[in-house]
Amino acid sequence: MKKKLSIVDIANSLNVSKTTISFILNGRAQEKRIGAELVERVLKFVEEVGYKPNPLAKSLRTGKSNIIGLMVEDIANPFFASIARLIEDRAYNNGYKIIYCSTDNNTEKTKDLIEMYRDRHVDGYIIAPPEGIEDDINSLIKAGFPVVLFDRNLENVNADYVVVDNLFSTYNATRHLISQGYKNIAYVSFLSSQAQLTQRLQGYKNALKEYNLKPIVKEVLFNRDNDVIMEPIRTFLKKRKDDIDAILFGTNHIGVCGLRLFSELGIKVPDDIAVVSFDDYEVFQLFTPPISAIAQPIVQIADNVITTLLSKLNSPVKDKSVKTITLSTELNIRSSSAPAKSNVVPV
Amino acid sequence: MKKKLSIVDIANSLNVSKTTISFILNGRAQEKRIGAELVERVLKFVEEVGYKPNPLAKSLRTGKSNIIGLMVEDIANPFFASIARLIEDRAYNNGYKIIYCSTDNNTEKTKDLIEMYRDRHVDGYIIAPPEGIEDDINSLIKAGFPVVLFDRNLENVNADYVVVDNLFSTYNATRHLISQGYKNIAYVSFLSSQAQLTQRLQGYKNALKEYNLKPIVKEVLFNRDNDVIMEPIRTFLKKRKDDIDAILFGTNHIGVCGLRLFSELGIKVPDDIAVVSFDDYEVFQLFTPPISAIAQPIVQIADNVITTLLSKLNSPVKDKSVKTITLSTELNIRSSSAPAKSNVVPV
Repeated sequence: MKKKLSIVDIANSLNVSKTTISFILNGRAQEKRIGAELVERVLKFVEEVGYKPNPLAKSLRTGKSNIIGLMVEDIANPFFASIARLIEDRAYNNGYKIIYCSTDNNTEKTKDLIEMYRDRHVDGYIIAPPEGIEDDINSLIKAGFPVVLFDRNLENVNADYVVVDNLFSTYNATRHLISQGYKNIAYVSFLSSQAQLTQRLQGYKNALKEYNLKPIVKEVLFNRDNDVIMEPIRTFLKKRKDDIDAILFGTNHIGVCGLRLFSELGIKVPDDIAVVSFDDYEVFQLFTPPISAIAQPIVQIADNVITTLLSKLNSPVKDKSVKTITLSTELNIRSSSAPAKSNVVPV
Repeated sequence: MKKKLSIVDIANSLNVSKTTISFILNGRAQEKRIGAELVERVLKFVEEVGYKPNPLAKSLRTGKSNIIGLMVEDIANPFFASIARLIEDRAYNNGYKIIYCSTDNNTEKTKDLIEMYRDRHVDGYIIAPPEGIEDDINSLIKAGFPVVLFDRNLENVNADYVVVDNLFSTYNATRHLISQGYKNIAYVSFLSSQAQLTQRLQGYKNALKEYNLKPIVKEVLFNRDNDVIMEPIRTFLKKRKDDIDAILFGTNHIGVCGLRLFSELGIKVPDDIAVVSFDDYEVFQLFTPPISAIAQPIVQIADNVITTLLSKLNSPVKDKSVKTITLSTELNIRSSSAPAKSNVVPV
């Protein structure tokens, strides 16, 4: 194996002090008033002998950092954690690293983070965007950065999107509950005007409308403290548990909060209330009874996100075309939505 | 609000082309053979007018990137995802960003990642280290980088550590099972010589020894595919389920794989087999019956890790002292380890 060249070796070969070499290689020649000719001579030499250049200095020159900025709502949420893991793997195999953060759906924090990423010369962005950052994303795109958005659409942002068919997913899940004989189906979710959540609500309403059933919607404010989320759901369930015979939960997070309350309130699934939740994961599979859930295609989401981004990053010419990839979900039917004891309605 | 100065404004004020200004501000003056005097004049001007300097160029000069490199075993594992989330929050509030990756406990990958992080001028490192990277970490420490290791110790690495008392945790959990009347207690975990796992195994053995009980150990190879992990556990359970009356699972991951098999094999918890698992999380809390688990103090782990790192990063003089912080765990006793139907032994 060839011995790795050190700064001392270069200094000796060129008969220049190692401090000077170090200043030049660390991009401090200007600051240290080192003449352009000497800089040129040193850079030429290190190129010839194959000295590994400082990648940060290189990134200043080439404008490439090989870092992708990933922004999810909450890295501790199993949906985002799983996607982040898959994106990270694919990125690593393609020579990219991931810098990540959780936005908490907080617009100001997200703006601040985008600014920080940009300052760090991130090559491309993968964002599950909160509302209110349309201008910031448009400005990234205008500046020529590849940006792939996922999980939710932003109106007025013409970027690449990878989303799932939220509207059909909840429409289909609600129809499933109706076909199992449930008539008083509540929808419990987070209060939000984010596209993915408004679409899920709409899908639920569309299905009920087809059967002339009345929507029963409970939306709660997002909070990082589960106890705070559970409080209004507890009140809702106490008040309405005898009127409703099924619940569709709009996210895995709210679904788990609901499940925690069922045993506390003595609600039996599916006898008292049948359940379907968005976002399948371990808890729903292992719960007794297992909970029917709308599974997002995690692998395909991650795959499409990173493939889209990499193809833009590696494109020799700026590729300004954008596309929206809409993936279908899968309704995993389990015992929590077994047929109601009353009559089953054919759908 | 003061209008943000643009490159054009600077160019006009100094009567220099904006391309030249841009080259200088982007650290390309050498490459473009721009004279040191002009560079000086431009840099002085932008300093006077408060033009925001390029942070990447700044980091080349100061050697600070305000990025912390985080390496966990698997960001999709709820234990690591929760800790990563908390570390990210604290880092963000202190002006640091997190670059992260999952090591898969793969030594080669981890070495490669450390190299990449180092190339990116990461300021400090937080690592749940696999074995075999002792030299790499020692070389980081020798180079003056703050490094905090967590979750497991590495022999021969003199760094800051944040760990839990693994030995006592499983000793205590095993004693709990014994006190509930169980006598044939198996330990099922990953085969590994990582410190945290060998300590957990030892704690289990220590407790059994005190009561003259025989260890029944099943260790399986780690794999990212759960089906592969479940296969040897399935064989083990099929063969031994009538001999054993309790199982202590060494990690949350293996615990969940075990739970998935119980219903398949018709094993009732705790009547057929009582269960305790390491690493409490949602699945164990919501399982029927709820699973007793050893809860690691996630918040305190994250807090101690980041506090230790930040204090080193912000220390005006190099602080070479290191410490090991060992945190206690909590055994959350639930129905899965209810007293055995046979006699209860006082402990």
